Amino acid sequence: MTKTHEIEIVSPSARLSAAEGSLLADCLETAGIPISLYCRKRGICGKCFVEILEGELPPPGEMESWLLAQRGLPPNCRLSCLYRVRSRVRLRIPEAFRLGKMSILDTGMDVPADFSPCVRKYFVKLAESTLHAPHSPAEGLERFFRRRLLLPLDVLRSLPGVEDEGGGEFTAVVFRENEILSLERGDTTSANWGAAVDIGTSTVVVELLDLNTGRPIGRAAAANSQIPYGSDIVSRITHAFRNPAGLSDLSGAIRGLLNRMIRGLAADSGISPEEIYEIVAAGNTAMSHFLLGIPVDTLAVSPFHGAFSSACPFRAKDIGLDLNPQARVYIAPNIKSFVGGDISAGLTALDLHKTDGSFLFIDLGTNGEIVLKKGRQCVATSTAAGPAFEGMNLSCGSLALPGAVHAASWDGGFVLRTIGDEPARGICGTGLVDILALCVRHRLVDSDGKIAGAEKNLRLSESLTLSQQDIREMQLAIAAVKTGVGNMLERFGIAIHDLQRIYVAGAFGNSLNIANGVAIGLLPDAPQDRIVFVGNASLAGARKLLLSGPERKTIEAFVRKVKHVSLAMDPAFQEQFVEALALKPYSGGTL
Amino acid sequence: MTKTHEIEIVSPSARLSAAEGSLLADCLETAGIPISLYCRKRGICGKCFVEILEGELPPPGEMESWLLAQRGLPPNCRLSCLYRVRSRVRLRIPEAFRLGKMSILDTGMDVPADFSPCVRKYFVKLAESTLHAPHSPAEGLERFFRRRLLLPLDVLRSLPGVEDEGGGEFTAVVFRENEILSLERGDTTSANWGAAVDIGTSTVVVELLDLNTGRPIGRAAAANSQIPYGSDIVSRITHAFRNPAGLSDLSGAIRGLLNRMIRGLAADSGISPEEIYEIVAAGNTAMSHFLLGIPVDTLAVSPFHGAFSSACPFRAKDIGLDLNPQARVYIAPNIKSFVGGDISAGLTALDLHKTDGSFLFIDLGTNGEIVLKKGRQCVATSTAAGPAFEGMNLSCGSLALPGAVHAASWDGGFVLRTIGDEPARGICGTGLVDILALCVRHRLVDSDGKIAGAEKNLRLSESLTLSQQDIREMQLAIAAVKTGVGNMLERFGIAIHDLQRIYVAGAFGNSLNIANGVAIGLLPDAPQDRIVFVGNASLAGARKLLLSGPERKTIEAFVRKVKHVSLAMDPAFQEQFVEALALKPYSGGTL
Repeated sequence: MTKTHEIEIVSPSARLSAAEGSLLADCLETAGIPISLYCRKRGICGKCFVEILEGELPPPGEMESWLLAQRGLPPNCRLSCLYRVRSRVRLRIPEAFRLGKMSILDTGMDVPADFSPCVRKYFVKLAESTLHAPHSPAEGLERFFRRRLLLPLDVLRSLPGVEDEGGGEFTAVVFRENEILSLERGDTTSANWGAAVDIGTSTVVVELLDLNTGRPIGRAAAANSQIPYGSDIVSRITHAFRNPAGLSDLSGAIRGLLNRMIRGLAADSGISPEEIYEIVAAGNTAMSHFLLGIPVDTLAVSPFHGAFSSACPFRAKDIGLDLNPQARVYIAPNIKSFVGGDISAGLTALDLHKTDGSFLFIDLGTNGEIVLKKGRQCVATSTAAGPAFEGMNLSCGSLALPGAVHAASWDGGFVLRTIGDEPARGICGTGLVDILALCVRHRLVDSDGKIAGAEKNLRLSESLTLSQQDIREMQLAIAAVKTGVGNMLERFGIAIHDLQRIYVAGAFGNSLNIANGVAIGLLPDAPQDRIVFVGNASLAGARKLLLSGPERKTIEAFVRKVKHVSLAMDPAFQEQFVEALALKPYSGGTL
Repeated sequence: MTKTHEIEIVSPSARLSAAEGSLLADCLETAGIPISLYCRKRGICGKCFVEILEGELPPPGEMESWLLAQRGLPPNCRLSCLYRVRSRVRLRIPEAFRLGKMSILDTGMDVPADFSPCVRKYFVKLAESTLHAPHSPAEGLERFFRRRLLLPLDVLRSLPGVEDEGGGEFTAVVFRENEILSLERGDTTSANWGAAVDIGTSTVVVELLDLNTGRPIGRAAAANSQIPYGSDIVSRITHAFRNPAGLSDLSGAIRGLLNRMIRGLAADSGISPEEIYEIVAAGNTAMSHFLLGIPVDTLAVSPFHGAFSSACPFRAKDIGLDLNPQARVYIAPNIKSFVGGDISAGLTALDLHKTDGSFLFIDLGTNGEIVLKKGRQCVATSTAAGPAFEGMNLSCGSLALPGAVHAASWDGGFVLRTIGDEPARGICGTGLVDILALCVRHRLVDSDGKIAGAEKNLRLSESLTLSQQDIREMQLAIAAVKTGVGNMLERFGIAIHDLQRIYVAGAFGNSLNIANGVAIGLLPDAPQDRIVFVGNASLAGARKLLLSGPERKTIEAFVRKVKHVSLAMDPAFQEQFVEALALKPYSGGTL
């Protein structure tokens, strides 16, 4: 028999048992402890540090020592992806490395005007069946609801029998007003829960909602558990496409994560996942395919399209989600190609598909998606921005965790502000934009992105440096979006100043310094009051779609009319891209 | 290890292996060899004889000897329900004891006028997706069909990928014109199969049909494998209601039988059960509940109603039927109480629900169901006739197998005619009616049913006798139906001669001598040309519902309007019943 050791986690509190020699990161991941394993457990991203309070403490490796020093961590911290369990271990996960603490930004927290969830509960009292007017329980239900009902087999099998106490009184869980999902004993109408999910390439957010009131009752965030298979969408698609078990790797990872997150959230709220009858998920095209276990072959090769756009609600159990066995899953419709359900959800959150004006919607995430609407016309495109905006592939980068630099100013030198005012441990997206703009303004970096002088790194503070490579990553990400926006404006023959609004969703939340964003060409040079940061519009859209059945039909119909532009198809694309690499504002007019 | 023996069956050809000491009947039943185990393997009904050609042959028991002599069987015949396997056995099942040979009677063999099966196959050629106009395979399908489609998860997962050879060409299996059940490689449009099933209390019939043409391609009949749990509906309901595993006993029995029958039929027709995409089943209320695994509690106690009437199509895999995993199951709607889907199917077969005249529909089976229609009004009732009409609970009774007396006349004594002109081995329903009428006419039995003189048995031929008990069973069955018909006519205020047609479905097929039926009060005394025998109208209806989607809606709507009469509720019932026990014609007029 293999020897096992106890692992006691003091904060967040948990106890696991681990086989001798097993990798601590594996144990934490299996137990659903939210920790970032961004670099695929290769010991290089430095995002999975734990503090070993008791237990064996081998000397740190070279990379580990460097990371410990750079981040100013206590000497008893170790990377969990390098640490093998060889004794009883007592540990603490420093706040900065807990994913649950990640800040999430919101839009549309209000209950939608047409609050009308698809799942409703009704306390039913059936009229008694008599010899003079006998009726079946099914007929009794139809009489109660005064309409024809769809009764799935499971419900027919659970109809109240003659020996059920109080058989004539129960709670019917009704889907879209005409399908009975389940019959529950007694009056359970006050417990009606649903979940809204945003499946981002980097981050997954789950929100639990009360479907009776539309109010959230809990929320959790975690790094997407697919990251070990690639930090960007293309490498995950390649993994799924090339490996026989690739699709099930990615499907299994996201389902497992969702199940763990939902279980945890439900426990925190004192409910059971069995009580959840509907979940709405919004994610980009690849994410929705992975969740459903649908092959992504057609996303892997030109002309790059998904297998489907919108589809009927699925059963949670068919997908492998551990909710009520009859729970339904609605997927925000994919628009086209890589412009997916996260974008249609974003449009839904902002009601953009219902307005007639001209606007631009930019989602700055691992993929940068752009939607341009002019009157009733609408086009969309996607760009491969990469995870730089989320601080994910930079040497100094950090998720928006405590200790990350989120803003910078200049007072004869850099003045850095960190989340939670903790010691600086890295730079998140908004901080990077400020720093880059300050560098260009104060000629530490020229507009081509080259660090002035012979230096290869720019020292920002005692513990933080920005490398030439970091700047290049940012340049590429910014240029990808800038080219996309410019190209779309040109096609539509519309100038930036003609846009009524520019909505910016995604990584930056609402704390981005607009002037700095405009200065380096990340944001179009529109009047500041026309630029609106909308945070996680995808989650807000998923929530709205959960709380309103009619919104689903509206966005599904809209999505079918959106035209898709493939930037790579445009002969001018390469030249536009190279031009856009310059760290300077949009050149006004159409570009 | 247990010793096993080989069992070789020479006709029908099969080989099994059996553990030392196991009951031969169990082995045959498990292997799906169609043999009647009517008395529940108690060695009394004498319907499971096999001829032992090689192997141990213990002397017959007392009952067995009597049965052997009475039926004139070879001395090496033994009841399989008493025979323990203790050596290698080679045996033959005499033709008379094979259920597959049972004669089945038909109505409505024609393809319905509105031939419009719910499952259709289309050979699809998708337009190529290009960079200029990319589209997903799902969109391609919707363009091909020029409509919005429901795409279940399994179909989304199987959409053609980029590496599939000929991925743009395949066969789509479409349900009700808007749901894709499956995508098949290549052009399989010529293979489109469905099954129509009549689940009778005593006999189950399965017919395989070509859904492209509407023509049957094969048919099989077998004794209902639920018979071991009771020969009549009430005892099966009681078994399901009283025993924790009762419902699953009965569900398992009928599903197992259907799976075996379909597998056999498919093999005979050179197709695979996986190629069957739809099945329509018609059976009485209890049978449909058992098939679906729905509790029958409410059928067990007053006011006696089922759990449901009609329901959405089910998935074969949810029910446990081994067809294509996406195959659908349609259940002919139950009317009310014990008047079930077999009757709604019968009405469908005859288009009775669409005609405006006055008619009577009588189904003479184990349950006797009666439907009376006058203009647009329609009432239905059921009577517990028992299995006497099927020759099942009489000492001399027999199913309509070769060697059964099916007709009798008088020429100074009984002249008996047997099915297949084989030596008389028993009497089936039509023969019993003839014999009983002749007995009354020639005063061998008085109209109260008592055998004249001091005899307890009437000798009909050298090998056949009719007992006083047999006559009592027939009297009770006839009186049940007669009371029901009389009661309904009275309620409606309609006389027999006002009926335009009297349709007789069920056990008797079309070979019943009407004059004899009228003489003993089994049939109303209407002009002979108004009495129409329609045979197995339930199977014909199932077939019609399989071949025509619109028929389903029509009958579902009709069924909701039928009124149900509970005979037991009528204070006059007992007196009417006692009166009806007399073996004489209806008393004219309303009764």
